[in-house]
Amino acid sequence: MQRPFDRHVGEAEIERIQGAARTRARDELAVEEPLEVRVDGEALAVTMRTPGEDEELAAGFLAGEGLIRGPEDIVSVGPTADLAANVVEVKTVAGLRRDASAERRFYLSSSCGVCGKGALEFVRQAAAASEPATIAAAVVLAAPTRLREAQRSFERTGGLHATGLLQADGELLAAREDVGRHNAFDKAVGSLLLEGRFPLPGVFACLSGRASFELVQKASLAGLAGLIAVGAPSTLAVDLARERGMLLCGFVRGSSFNVYSSGERLIP
Amino acid sequence: MQRPFDRHVGEAEIERIQGAARTRARDELAVEEPLEVRVDGEALAVTMRTPGEDEELAAGFLAGEGLIRGPEDIVSVGPTADLAANVVEVKTVAGLRRDASAERRFYLSSSCGVCGKGALEFVRQAAAASEPATIAAAVVLAAPTRLREAQRSFERTGGLHATGLLQADGELLAAREDVGRHNAFDKAVGSLLLEGRFPLPGVFACLSGRASFELVQKASLAGLAGLIAVGAPSTLAVDLARERGMLLCGFVRGSSFNVYSSGERLIP
Repeated sequence: MQRPFDRHVGEAEIERIQGAARTRARDELAVEEPLEVRVDGEALAVTMRTPGEDEELAAGFLAGEGLIRGPEDIVSVGPTADLAANVVEVKTVAGLRRDASAERRFYLSSSCGVCGKGALEFVRQAAAASEPATIAAAVVLAAPTRLREAQRSFERTGGLHATGLLQADGELLAAREDVGRHNAFDKAVGSLLLEGRFPLPGVFACLSGRASFELVQKASLAGLAGLIAVGAPSTLAVDLARERGMLLCGFVRGSSFNVYSSGERLIP
Repeated sequence: MQRPFDRHVGEAEIERIQGAARTRARDELAVEEPLEVRVDGEALAVTMRTPGEDEELAAGFLAGEGLIRGPEDIVSVGPTADLAANVVEVKTVAGLRRDASAERRFYLSSSCGVCGKGALEFVRQAAAASEPATIAAAVVLAAPTRLREAQRSFERTGGLHATGLLQADGELLAAREDVGRHNAFDKAVGSLLLEGRFPLPGVFACLSGRASFELVQKASLAGLAGLIAVGAPSTLAVDLARERGMLLCGFVRGSSFNVYSSGERLIP
């Protein structure tokens, strides 16, 4: 149910946990979907973005990379004939100013390809089977504090994300921090992997920030049982967590949190 | 001056603005530097990360991409012979499980290449010359509130970043939001570009979150006069802003903020 001017906001049925109370609710989520930026017929990049203003995103992206010099380099920007394809096409006057690929200025991330459906398919096939595990609501509530205590540098800089990996009994197996959310996650999982421990069934990740599609995808590939986020999840993060049967908790603050997926794994 | 166990935290001389008071101070910053992940001799990805635990980052990254299946796929992970190069090298037992590049699962971002120095060089050459512009401290302090008012969806979802572009007199030229910080920035700049306005001398960007190297780089390529961030900047963000003579304000909250670069552009 889309509202005018509101491609940014989606909705989901969730459960709200507050102390001992557990109620059903509707929650509003930031919409996240992949967009392919195509230039003169060739795919240049895929980014996970909130739909809307895709032409602006493409133009600003090319300018911010130094690939165009300004409006004079652009003939047109718009959707492709197949509107459902989540592709924005840029036609340039005389090609890009530099060969982006030749300079290897790429950042590899777990962006999924051209559509969310394809990504779900990929993860379904690639991910290790994870046994259903349960966790107590009290452990979920305590996880962000445990993580914060393990974060050495955040208090001093205010600029670092963290990921903790914990067991259902609350024991913290690893905690890592980084300026990048994905890096903190990769470091925490990598630390256990280098000890010979991977995949990680029965392990939950606690995130200092939001839960994006890409973090749920990484969690799924690591065989984690669930994600506990201090911040908000996106629409596609919720879709993937439900698809994979992973517990997904968000807005874990004080004595309350939201459950977006697999609430049956939560013990009161 | 590095402290033991603290490659995560750097320091900078800054100015602290509090009401009418303006004092010099030392601030602690999250360290941000590029890392190249090399697999079996070939460069696979460059990420902007906080140094430390690079082996874990590489291992977790490959696992999270489904490129390795677990510890049994890795022969060794470690720095290359040239320790200063910010490269981590992974040797695998029998190559990656999939051809990462063939699947086009790349996300293009403004990661700079293999070293920060190279990036500074690139930006110095590529960026449009920006005329020095000044801005009043009161306009800086009011900018986050102006941006928040223009953000339609954050309050509802708690999951969206925003970028505003404003003139020195405080007039908001554009405000865009997105699940991705870079996307919100690209959309805001792109909206003016598509109106024929680019580069953007005398224009300041207000960021709802932190200021990373990549956002300062985008700002520089757009010819912006400065960045006003609600969150913290990283070390490399400060380096680049100073290199380019851009105003960089951080932790803009209530009646105070920090000035990390080009304080002479700030009018009391």
